Amino acid sequence: MKKLFAEFFGTFWLVFGGCGSAIFAAAFPELGIGFVGVSLAFGLTVLTMAYAVGHISGGHFNPAVSLGLWAGGKFEGKSLPGYIVAQLIGAIAAAGVLYLIISGKAGFTDVGGFASNGYGDLSPDGYSMQSALIAEFVLTLFFLLIILGSTNPRAPKGFAPIAIGLGLTLIHLVSIPITNTSVNPARSTSQALFAGGDYTGQLWLFWLAPIAGAIVAGVIHKAFFDKE
Amino acid sequence: MKKLFAEFFGTFWLVFGGCGSAIFAAAFPELGIGFVGVSLAFGLTVLTMAYAVGHISGGHFNPAVSLGLWAGGKFEGKSLPGYIVAQLIGAIAAAGVLYLIISGKAGFTDVGGFASNGYGDLSPDGYSMQSALIAEFVLTLFFLLIILGSTNPRAPKGFAPIAIGLGLTLIHLVSIPITNTSVNPARSTSQALFAGGDYTGQLWLFWLAPIAGAIVAGVIHKAFFDKE
Amino acid sequence: MKKLFAEFFGTFWLVFGGCGSAIFAAAFPELGIGFVGVSLAFGLTVLTMAYAVGHISGGHFNPAVSLGLWAGGKFEGKSLPGYIVAQLIGAIAAAGVLYLIISGKAGFTDVGGFASNGYGDLSPDGYSMQSALIAEFVLTLFFLLIILGSTNPRAPKGFAPIAIGLGLTLIHLVSIPITNTSVNPARSTSQALFAGGDYTGQLWLFWLAPIAGAIVAGVIHKAFFDKE
Amino acid sequence: MKKLFAEFFGTFWLVFGGCGSAIFAAAFPELGIGFVGVSLAFGLTVLTMAYAVGHISGGHFNPAVSLGLWAGGKFEGKSLPGYIVAQLIGAIAAAGVLYLIISGKAGFTDVGGFASNGYGDLSPDGYSMQSALIAEFVLTLFFLLIILGSTNPRAPKGFAPIAIGLGLTLIHLVSIPITNTSVNPARSTSQALFAGGDYTGQLWLFWLAPIAGAIVAGVIHKAFFDKE
Repeated sequence: MKKLFAEFFGTFWLVFGGCGSAIFAAAFPELGIGFVGVSLAFGLTVLTMAYAVGHISGGHFNPAVSLGLWAGGKFEGKSLPGYIVAQLIGAIAAAGVLYLIISGKAGFTDVGGFASNGYGDLSPDGYSMQSALIAEFVLTLFFLLIILGSTNPRAPKGFAPIAIGLGLTLIHLVSIPITNTSVNPARSTSQALFAGGDYTGQLWLFWLAPIAGAIVAGVIHKAFFDKE
Repeated sequence: MKKLFAEFFGTFWLVFGGCGSAIFAAAFPELGIGFVGVSLAFGLTVLTMAYAVGHISGGHFNPAVSLGLWAGGKFEGKSLPGYIVAQLIGAIAAAGVLYLIISGKAGFTDVGGFASNGYGDLSPDGYSMQSALIAEFVLTLFFLLIILGSTNPRAPKGFAPIAIGLGLTLIHLVSIPITNTSVNPARSTSQALFAGGDYTGQLWLFWLAPIAGAIVAGVIHKAFFDKE
Repeated sequence: MKKLFAEFFGTFWLVFGGCGSAIFAAAFPELGIGFVGVSLAFGLTVLTMAYAVGHISGGHFNPAVSLGLWAGGKFEGKSLPGYIVAQLIGAIAAAGVLYLIISGKAGFTDVGGFASNGYGDLSPDGYSMQSALIAEFVLTLFFLLIILGSTNPRAPKGFAPIAIGLGLTLIHLVSIPITNTSVNPARSTSQALFAGGDYTGQLWLFWLAPIAGAIVAGVIHKAFFDKE
Repeated sequence: MKKLFAEFFGTFWLVFGGCGSAIFAAAFPELGIGFVGVSLAFGLTVLTMAYAVGHISGGHFNPAVSLGLWAGGKFEGKSLPGYIVAQLIGAIAAAGVLYLIISGKAGFTDVGGFASNGYGDLSPDGYSMQSALIAEFVLTLFFLLIILGSTNPRAPKGFAPIAIGLGLTLIHLVSIPITNTSVNPARSTSQALFAGGDYTGQLWLFWLAPIAGAIVAGVIHKAFFDKE
């Protein structure tokens, strides 16, 4: 049970900190944090909560991560449903609090796209569905290679949250213009629920591509990198 | 006594480095550091002094942190008054030195809002009192979850200052547009004293919300995450 | 064989993440990541994969690094050809995937210079061939001094990927305007193959200068810093 | 002797990387790294070389650091002259190589102020001599408190280069607009030699204030923080 609380708080923080930085601070005139700041924010949500509660739940905060670790033989299948439900509840709760805060801004009318992920017309820079599929697949694949590799018993102890968190920063530095960067179905779902409209219709890609990439990474790690 | 010196120097550095970066460098034409730079600066004040004197005083540098650690059962109540006074003196001394430096700038007339925190008309991007309360409460709650979790004996040793410092960076990346980011009553007080006027009248929120968030975090950590 | 896979994935990630951030995100209007973001991205590719697979292959991801380690007596000459081939295949495969993604962008016509390195007319800020030679030589020399020094048995354990990755970030912060920053012949080759034209004709410099700098660093480290 | 080589290379890298990033990349149109990038670059020069050669020479790379460690009882006075000479030679050699590179830029005429430090008319944002004195004194004082504290036997092992390097980043985030940030007489001297003119006449302040701050920090650390 405490593991599920840890996943709830961790995924809440990922969405509150990562999506919140995008919603509140990215485009502030002159002084805004831009994509660099948003990338840093997403990565630091994971770095900080992995140090804070990683020793309790493993610090997944992402259904694709849980599934990739399961595919790599590092997580029991019977724990998957609980973890994924806790992650979704945490992500959606955070989106709700973000909504509460933004609705108190002078001149607020609606959330627009919130910090939703999208492709085609909803891609920040007009990338096709195919480009989005490839990018989300490749980036989640490497995210899991980093997670599986840096938490391997042969890797230096204690550094994994730095590698994983800053790995998520790197992933955002590359792909915000393509899909607004998901690699995390819980994060995508939480935003689409509030943005509604076409964003909900594109959610399938942000479940499919990250999970496929994560599972392939689990298989690769198990086959090539896990044993001495 | 050396603990109180450590808290004095640490809180001085937090205000001098964090608020100083905002006052001197954020809005420099073309090359200014913007909110990303200020966020980084605040986080690095804590990261650096937590490595430098954390082994002496615990490295709180913030009355809300001291109270949250007390609520979580990690700090003795009888040490609270001394710590909080040392933090306030350090913060105010730093604000005084910032004033000395800025007053030597060509064309200086007054400090304006200094790096004060505010809501409503004094929020950088026009957020209401309610939005400010929620943001400061949630962000300080997670700041303390990070502090309590990363300093827990089961977390990797030595990495807590990285998690805590970069956690403070993340908090600023999210919330400078909302309240100019407090999560620290000593930091807020030091600036309002020099900015005066309406800023002083809003100080209550930057004591109430961070301390409430910190104490709730202490209770949560104690209940769910502290024991094996 | 697993070592070659590790070098393949690591160099793929270096080109996909580093060059990808430059191609997709550097110049996005208003919110783009600029040279700071690209510098961070390149460094984080190495930081992340060095923690993930450094314990398998050593984490070179760069022919100049392999040659510098060989010159410094830390890598066997007979492994050089396999490593360099795996690095080149990884780099070129990543460039291919970057091409697939960018070609799905609305209004795409051609890759232009991709993220190629260049001097003279092809230098981002108009630096001569001589300036490019000096910069690439000096920067790769120090890159290898950092690698050889931070992986030395007398250096703190486990921190080398941080020093090396952020060292590559630093190198980019200095030299993107000069040559678009190589210090890595595999990275340069992968981009020139897709950019074609004059870029291919300048590739020699981005093999010669980095390798010369790396070998000199190996000799310096062996002579002055390796023994007690 | 190998210690002096380590100080030579480390101080060369500090000036080449830190001042180089300012000269080549800070003001590049649209994509330039600004003061955030320069701050990061200076800090990473120290972080990287402290991991690379810190175990050889202690990793000072700065006459004020050597003097502050001596005042704090952590460095022998008889080693001071050799260290300071090696630092000065490294800094000046780096400035020479920077000159070689920049002189190969299309349209180069002269180095202007190079990356020199200054106050009054030569302060980037018009700060007075008094403001410059206070800023350089306070910032170097805290730089040494960070160095002395994070290398203390009671601080976590291996993390000092992170605290010290990112501490230098923080110092730059605060004070580039004030003095262009020195806290290092060797760095200041190397630039003034090439910039000439009025910059040379202001060099005294960038020896006096950093050294005074460093020595006061040494005394404070010895008196309050060093013993159990």
